[in-house]
Amino acid sequence: MALFLGLSAFPITPADENGQIDANALAALLERLAKAKVHSVGLLGSTGGYAYLTRSERRRAIAIAVEALNRRVPVIASVGAIRTDEAQNLARDARDEGADGLLLAPVSYTPLTQEEAYQHYLAVASATDLPLCIYNNPSTTHFNFSPELLARLAQVPTIAAVKMPLPADRDFASEIARIRSTAPSGFAVGYSGDWGCGEALLAGADIWFSVIGGLLPEPSMKITKEALAGDAQEVARLNSIFEPLWDLFQEFGSLRVVYAAMNILGLSQAQPHRPLLPLSAAEHGRVQAALEALEEI
Amino acid sequence: MALFLGLSAFPITPADENGQIDANALAALLERLAKAKVHSVGLLGSTGGYAYLTRSERRRAIAIAVEALNRRVPVIASVGAIRTDEAQNLARDARDEGADGLLLAPVSYTPLTQEEAYQHYLAVASATDLPLCIYNNPSTTHFNFSPELLARLAQVPTIAAVKMPLPADRDFASEIARIRSTAPSGFAVGYSGDWGCGEALLAGADIWFSVIGGLLPEPSMKITKEALAGDAQEVARLNSIFEPLWDLFQEFGSLRVVYAAMNILGLSQAQPHRPLLPLSAAEHGRVQAALEALEEI
Repeated sequence: MALFLGLSAFPITPADENGQIDANALAALLERLAKAKVHSVGLLGSTGGYAYLTRSERRRAIAIAVEALNRRVPVIASVGAIRTDEAQNLARDARDEGADGLLLAPVSYTPLTQEEAYQHYLAVASATDLPLCIYNNPSTTHFNFSPELLARLAQVPTIAAVKMPLPADRDFASEIARIRSTAPSGFAVGYSGDWGCGEALLAGADIWFSVIGGLLPEPSMKITKEALAGDAQEVARLNSIFEPLWDLFQEFGSLRVVYAAMNILGLSQAQPHRPLLPLSAAEHGRVQAALEALEEI
Repeated sequence: MALFLGLSAFPITPADENGQIDANALAALLERLAKAKVHSVGLLGSTGGYAYLTRSERRRAIAIAVEALNRRVPVIASVGAIRTDEAQNLARDARDEGADGLLLAPVSYTPLTQEEAYQHYLAVASATDLPLCIYNNPSTTHFNFSPELLARLAQVPTIAAVKMPLPADRDFASEIARIRSTAPSGFAVGYSGDWGCGEALLAGADIWFSVIGGLLPEPSMKITKEALAGDAQEVARLNSIFEPLWDLFQEFGSLRVVYAAMNILGLSQAQPHRPLLPLSAAEHGRVQAALEALEEI
C-alpha cells in the first residue's frame, strides 16, 4: 500500500523543559492515532518540534513510536537539519529504528540556493532506501522551491512525495496537475495548512499532512473520508464546525494552539520548547470554546 | 573603553567537513586582525558559521581566539541557538572562555512572537554579566524587531548594543536617532551590510559589524577611520574601489564570496559547510578580479 496517502497525523512530541521525551505520554498519543486508524503518523514534524530536539532524542522518539504502533500505522519521520551530514545521520537513525518513510525540510541559516537545496536533498535521499517526502514549508524554512527544482527532485529514485503549503489562489487542481506532469507516475502530492486540506483532497491531492490529525484523529478521519469520497458539501459542513479552531491556528500558529488543546483535553502537560511560550489564560479559553464546538461532530 | 565601536571584524571559522575547527588556521586569521588593530573581533557570527557548529566546537573557537589575541583585541562571541536554554549555555561557555561580549540573533524554527523574542533575550542576557548586542539579521533569522521591542530590550541592563541591517531608505541618521531616543545613554547602534557601512559610520553609527573586516582588515580600517573622521568624499572613493566586491556580496551572499576570497588569497583552504556550496570557477574569477581592484587602496 502506498505510504503517502490519506490522513498523515502529526502529533506533538511531549518532552520536559530539558528536551527529554516523555515516552509514556508519546505512546499514549500514538495509541489514540492507531485506534482512529489514521493512514500514517508524521513523527517529529514541525508540530513534533524536531528542530528543538537533539539527535539522540529524535532517535528515541522513533524507537518509541515504532514500538507503540507495532506496525498498525506506518511512521514517517522528519529528518531536517541545518547540515547535510547531520540530516544524513538522522535519516540513517530513522531507518535503523524502523521508520517507514522520511520527511525532509530545507532548514537553513544562510539562505540556500536552488542548487544547494537540490544537492542537500540528493545526499539525504541517497543515505537510505526509505521513501522521502519533500517538506515544503516556507513559513518555517523561508525557502521557496522553484517548479524546476521540484521537477528535478521528483526524478530522484527515493523521493516519492511533496508536502506543499496551501496555494495563495487555492487552485489546488492546477498545482497538482503541474507537479504531476513533471514527476514520475505515483509521485504523491499533499498539503498542510489544516483549514484548506479538505478542499485539497477534494481536488485530488493524495495526502493531508495534518496537525489536527495528531490531536483529534477521529473528526480528522471523518473529513478525510468525506473528501476522498468527493462529498464537497459534507466537507464544507465539517470545516465550518472546525472554523473557530482554524482561526486560532492562523492567529497563533497551530503549534501553540495544539499544546493548549492537549493541556485542556488532559492528554499531555507538556509545554512548547522555550523560547516558544504557552498561550495566555484568555487564549486558552478560546481554544476550549473551539474544542467544545467540535463535540457535535 | 567601549566595546561596541569602530570596526568589528567577522572572520570565517575554518573547519573541516565534519565541523572540526582548524585551530592554527583560525589563529592565523586572527593574527592578521590584531596586526591591523581592528576594534573588536566578531567571532562565530553568520560569517563564522556558528549555526553549523556544535556547542563544543563553538566553545573551542572562543578559547582559541582568546589565546591567539591575548587581549590585544576584544572578542565578541555569537551565542545564537534555537532553544533558550542552549543559548544560555553558550553564553556561559563564552564567559568562561574569556569572551568580552556577546552577540545574540533570534534564530528560530517556529516563527517567534515579539514577546517570545523579548523573553529569550532577557533569559540569555541574564545568564552572564557580559555586555550583549542584539543581532538583528532578518535575512538569516526572518525575525523583525518592532521599534517597541528594541526599546524594551535596550532597558535590560546587560543589553548594550544593536546590530541593524541597512535601512531600506538608507536614512541612517533618522533610524539611529529613533533608537537612541528610547535607549539608555551609551547604548550603541551599529550596522552590517558592508556596502552601506561607511555611510552608516558617517551618519553617526557607533560600530560597523564587518564581513570584509574579517578578510581584509587593513583596507576596512581605512574606510572606518575616514568615516569616523567625517571624510565623506574619501569614504565614497574607497567604496567605489570596493564596488565589484560589494556587488558579489549582494549577488552570492557575502559568506560564499569570503570563502572564495580566502581560498584565492591562500589564507585558508576551508570550504563552506554543506549544504552551502563553494562558488564556481567562473565566479572565483570574478572574486579574484574584485580583489585585484583593491590593490590600489
